[in-house]
Amino acid sequence: MSLGYNLASLEELINQFQRMPGIGIKSAQRMAFYVLSMEEEEAKKFAEAILSAHTKIHQCKTCYNLTENEYCVICRNEARNKEIICVVEDPRDVAAIERTHEFDGTYHVLHGAISPMSGIGPDQLTIKELLNRTEGIKEVIMATNPTVEGEATAMYVSRLLKPLGIKVTRLAYGVPVGADLEYADEVTLTRAMEGRTEI
Amino acid sequence: MSLGYNLASLEELINQFQRMPGIGIKSAQRMAFYVLSMEEEEAKKFAEAILSAHTKIHQCKTCYNLTENEYCVICRNEARNKEIICVVEDPRDVAAIERTHEFDGTYHVLHGAISPMSGIGPDQLTIKELLNRTEGIKEVIMATNPTVEGEATAMYVSRLLKPLGIKVTRLAYGVPVGADLEYADEVTLTRAMEGRTEI
Repeated sequence: MSLGYNLASLEELINQFQRMPGIGIKSAQRMAFYVLSMEEEEAKKFAEAILSAHTKIHQCKTCYNLTENEYCVICRNEARNKEIICVVEDPRDVAAIERTHEFDGTYHVLHGAISPMSGIGPDQLTIKELLNRTEGIKEVIMATNPTVEGEATAMYVSRLLKPLGIKVTRLAYGVPVGADLEYADEVTLTRAMEGRTEI
Repeated sequence: MSLGYNLASLEELINQFQRMPGIGIKSAQRMAFYVLSMEEEEAKKFAEAILSAHTKIHQCKTCYNLTENEYCVICRNEARNKEIICVVEDPRDVAAIERTHEFDGTYHVLHGAISPMSGIGPDQLTIKELLNRTEGIKEVIMATNPTVEGEATAMYVSRLLKPLGIKVTRLAYGVPVGADLEYADEVTLTRAMEGRTEI
């Protein structure tokens, strides 16, 4: 569709932004115009940031978290407890858990969840790689998303790990702290009730 | 604020996206991760699109619309009626009017509206440049936004043009086509009533 600008370079830039997740045509136009309003130096820095991040960042050889080195900053940290692995779907989940400052083990990033609907099977994830690093592991915490896919993935992985004598746990379900009980859905409330603890 | 990624290049890219208008930290992260998931070639094309649009696009010497040439495609078009100028705030407004295919005159882009609150006076806009191109002009259509600032700008410009014997008009106010009358605000409804036409 022509946007009526008659400017190939502008329409190309709008197209590029529009391909981003969650960005519609209006946002894409606003962002493209913002780029045009930038100083020359700023635009260069923006383009450089894209290339630089894309070139420098790849997956850690142990846990498949993102890193600019061969191994990620968590795997390289001697102080981290290498006997506990927290399994997550996405590098963003690693960052979310790191922000709690409560976990001192290591991670394993699956880069997705099993989803037959989207054609994602166990082989598309780093499950084999997880099984290859189980030596000396005492506990694996499944921290996949609380969705159907995340649950299925957690079940699948735990069935592979348990025969190896590894303790497999998962994050507690319950009501989110600070939220209003009134707005919690039935399943969450049921899980919170089931998982109640003595005070 | 650290996002917990421990990756300078990723955090820089997220920062760059977050500076865009209407983009919060969550969207910025999603976009940065999308860039990481791109193919090498795609990332290069994206960075190139930013530099290319930024380098190639500048303002038309006559109407201050955006162009990749010295004069914009509308000013260069011999078929356009050079005796009518439609004054808009933004190049996006030119594109919006062009999409109607109903206007065959030329434009003048003010690049903003008078807004004392934001410290934008007449001198920051291309009003002087508009006055310099009034020779042979029969009508100026004020198509600034229907906001306080847009209205004030339209009034200001029309007071400068009328003494020169130029007919100054403005876009009709009224109910938007396809909208529900019930949801129209009082001011719009009043204007639509005042501007009613015989059928």
